[in-house]
Amino acid sequence: PYIPRVIKILNNEGVHVLKKVEDAQTISKLAEKYKHAIIVGGSFIGIETAHALRKRGLDVTLIEYFPQVMPGKLNKQLAKIVEKTLEEEGIKLILGAGVKEISGGLGDKKVVAGNEEIRGDFVVMATGTRPNVELARKAGLEVGETGGIKVNERMQTSDPSIYAAGDNAEVLDMVTCKPTLSLLGNTAVKMGRVAGINAAGGDAKFRGVVNVWIVNLENLKFGGAGISYDHALKLGIDAVAVTIRVPDKPEIYPDAHKITVRLIAEKTTGRILGGQILGVDGVLCRLNVLATVLSREMTVHELAELELAYTPSLCEIVDPLHVAADALLKRLRKRS
Amino acid sequence: PYIPRVIKILNNEGVHVLKKVEDAQTISKLAEKYKHAIIVGGSFIGIETAHALRKRGLDVTLIEYFPQVMPGKLNKQLAKIVEKTLEEEGIKLILGAGVKEISGGLGDKKVVAGNEEIRGDFVVMATGTRPNVELARKAGLEVGETGGIKVNERMQTSDPSIYAAGDNAEVLDMVTCKPTLSLLGNTAVKMGRVAGINAAGGDAKFRGVVNVWIVNLENLKFGGAGISYDHALKLGIDAVAVTIRVPDKPEIYPDAHKITVRLIAEKTTGRILGGQILGVDGVLCRLNVLATVLSREMTVHELAELELAYTPSLCEIVDPLHVAADALLKRLRKRS
Repeated sequence: PYIPRVIKILNNEGVHVLKKVEDAQTISKLAEKYKHAIIVGGSFIGIETAHALRKRGLDVTLIEYFPQVMPGKLNKQLAKIVEKTLEEEGIKLILGAGVKEISGGLGDKKVVAGNEEIRGDFVVMATGTRPNVELARKAGLEVGETGGIKVNERMQTSDPSIYAAGDNAEVLDMVTCKPTLSLLGNTAVKMGRVAGINAAGGDAKFRGVVNVWIVNLENLKFGGAGISYDHALKLGIDAVAVTIRVPDKPEIYPDAHKITVRLIAEKTTGRILGGQILGVDGVLCRLNVLATVLSREMTVHELAELELAYTPSLCEIVDPLHVAADALLKRLRKRS
Repeated sequence: PYIPRVIKILNNEGVHVLKKVEDAQTISKLAEKYKHAIIVGGSFIGIETAHALRKRGLDVTLIEYFPQVMPGKLNKQLAKIVEKTLEEEGIKLILGAGVKEISGGLGDKKVVAGNEEIRGDFVVMATGTRPNVELARKAGLEVGETGGIKVNERMQTSDPSIYAAGDNAEVLDMVTCKPTLSLLGNTAVKMGRVAGINAAGGDAKFRGVVNVWIVNLENLKFGGAGISYDHALKLGIDAVAVTIRVPDKPEIYPDAHKITVRLIAEKTTGRILGGQILGVDGVLCRLNVLATVLSREMTVHELAELELAYTPSLCEIVDPLHVAADALLKRLRKRS
């Protein structure tokens, strides 16, 4: 966990992070005794913690520095869907408010965010993750521009007798073809597997990541893979994007729900760069197809034609992924 | 619908097929008035009809010629899972019994199957589908070995001014690279789209199919894609297969269920040829990944490494697809 230095923690009693199992156990115990949790940070960990504590009946206030939750991962329009769900759960959101100061003891915490002072019983800091490269630097290993340890596809550091894996090490982003910090559990496990095989004398390679992620709020699942539209623009890629919202199965079924799919592609090649999906159901399903599509460097045209299973009680013949791809194809044709 | 000639229908009152919306409406009305339905045929349509009628409270007897349901689509071991679910629903299965004769009027049907006579109120024939190529033959169009109308990838028949699409026409099987009859709704829609675009002066191509299919029995979803192990052997392909059964998510979650994955690959290349998946949940999700994997001609090794989304409340880091791919990799190494 990384806590920005601008946040002055005057009293760290009742201020917790989520790193180890023990941290979760501590927070879980606090949830039995106390009534009001303040969560700092509106990304994966902050949102999941807020949801879990709210489910246990606590008052929950979630504070995010950016004017939306999931900054960098979802655009403002998509973030609104998540924010609405959190608010419907009864979580109080304070957006666009940087935390300056945390004071007071357990059961009487004061958090100064923007111009407000929020009072609660305990605080969970979910302000992000940074590689801890102290040991690597001491060992003289190269650290990349991302701040992570440089490794090759065999997970070897600049010292070939030392391997690195997990949040500390860089990986290749298969979409941008640049090193990135994945910071995802599934990536860490895969990297560990490769590093372990090689360190034990075997030969394994790690291709890279498309960084597929998902969050489950029960009434809403949301996730993404590849890069966002803004990220593409920052890299100088001429990108186009569409957002569609259609039923996840024929609407005659009572459990049909709207699903939102945003798809981003490169204009010149039609190659899919990324996407985000939000809905009550069927999000994991489409995300995994999208992740596969990204890892095989497929185009919008290929996704529009992709064969997917069909049975009316579960899904439409023209899947939301197809609808999004068709919409993006039209957009691509218009612009060319 | 195709009804084998060996089945003598002495009285076709109360004998129905499922082709048009009106057929379903007729059967639905019979279900209001009568108590016992006899279904002939234990594949997609027969199983789905049996399930739907049983759900409406009818006594249902399902008769299948082969000694298992889903012949050709599931092996015996996997078919047992489906049979168990159908029996738990209260459907009576008569397997390995060819229907010889259907007699009696509506409300008093007699079906002779094997050495048994089954009595019921009405009969639904779900004995398969064959292309109806009568019109095509009259028009002098070429018909392929599969019995379907020959078309090129633009859905043009041997007469370039005539297009064909749907169950009547052949398509390319992307796994075997041979013409096949897909007989699936989603394939028909895609073929129609291509034929329509071309007939209207456009230019569209149909790549072919991996034939992904799924059946939803609510308490069990099951489906497949690509070809079966037996089919591979028949084609002279040196194939290997594994079947694994693991939880679809961490077992600490009360809604975790076992999911069964069978995976078939070519020994020499490691290319995945097909698979079948059965479970309470998450079947569509994995089938669509498998369909994508098949349509991109991926290997077992590539599937084992495939990046999929992870969040513990929905899925494991090592997905059942990964478990199956890892097991198949081990099998491939042993044999080489």
